[in-house]
Amino acid sequence: MDIETVNSLSYEEFIELFGGVVERCPLAAAAVWSRRPFGCVSDVEAGIGEFIDSLSESGKEGLVRCHPDLAGRELASGTLTAESQREQEGAGLASLQAEEAAQIAGLNREYKQRFGFPFVICARTSDKAAILQQLQQRLRNLRSQELLHAVQEIKKICHLRLQDLLHRAPPKL
Amino acid sequence: MDIETVNSLSYEEFIELFGGVVERCPLAAAAVWSRRPFGCVSDVEAGIGEFIDSLSESGKEGLVRCHPDLAGRELASGTLTAESQREQEGAGLASLQAEEAAQIAGLNREYKQRFGFPFVICARTSDKAAILQQLQQRLRNLRSQELLHAVQEIKKICHLRLQDLLHRAPPKL
Repeated sequence: MDIETVNSLSYEEFIELFGGVVERCPLAAAAVWSRRPFGCVSDVEAGIGEFIDSLSESGKEGLVRCHPDLAGRELASGTLTAESQREQEGAGLASLQAEEAAQIAGLNREYKQRFGFPFVICARTSDKAAILQQLQQRLRNLRSQELLHAVQEIKKICHLRLQDLLHRAPPKL
Repeated sequence: MDIETVNSLSYEEFIELFGGVVERCPLAAAAVWSRRPFGCVSDVEAGIGEFIDSLSESGKEGLVRCHPDLAGRELASGTLTAESQREQEGAGLASLQAEEAAQIAGLNREYKQRFGFPFVICARTSDKAAILQQLQQRLRNLRSQELLHAVQEIKKICHLRLQDLLHRAPPKL
């Protein structure tokens, strides 16, 4: 999809297309539409990054809370967003051994108890061994460090979701 | 629902329950969870108001863009959120005469063309005659005035949605 196509979208079309690049937060795309016309496709990503950075601290925490657990109940029940489902399956989280699943579930619980938001990692640039190792390591961080870390991961996830959308054929709207 | 019940909710439960009080913006509830424990139920509303006020100008525009058209295609096709469906039906927008429907559709188009976001009004404190009159009148406003106005309407909608939730029986979660 070229930038002319992106710039020609109505806000409804733009939100429909890009509303899922930040998990459960169509507001990010809806806000970024204000920046049209975009000079190039990376301006869309830059705009979303600025939107995220402009959120208050509790807003950023909220953004992290809009993410599902890794290898959690929603993966098992198929109620994740389509994007999260693909990403978690791709990292091997849908086919864990019982012991691995129990270990990740326990660490997720501990992480949420400690920080008040879920562990977020860009699953597509990781695998289950690395995820487990990161979960154990990041549990020891300060809350403020972890919030920054989670926001960086959200930006990585957003980057890859945007790449998928921008490199496919233009939408039929 | 009393405040002890609200304060006892996990963030997942809180987002599930309050995630729709701002249209298509679970982020608002997710952010406000950071403020627990709440002293009283009106603290939840105050927190959401502060979240909205803390958004950048394009963030506020995005918030407005996450709202559907009044008496638009989504009302006809039944694809509105449950909250919006009830509110628009309650204001008589589901049973417009063809001429009224055409007039509102035309004014909505003009409004969106002029401001880059949809006309938002708290339908529950209005009716179709007042909505039509407001739409015609607000079309003449400056964009900056209209953004402020739309944000105020979003807060009124949020207030009534919160009242519905807080005055019903506690959720079975």
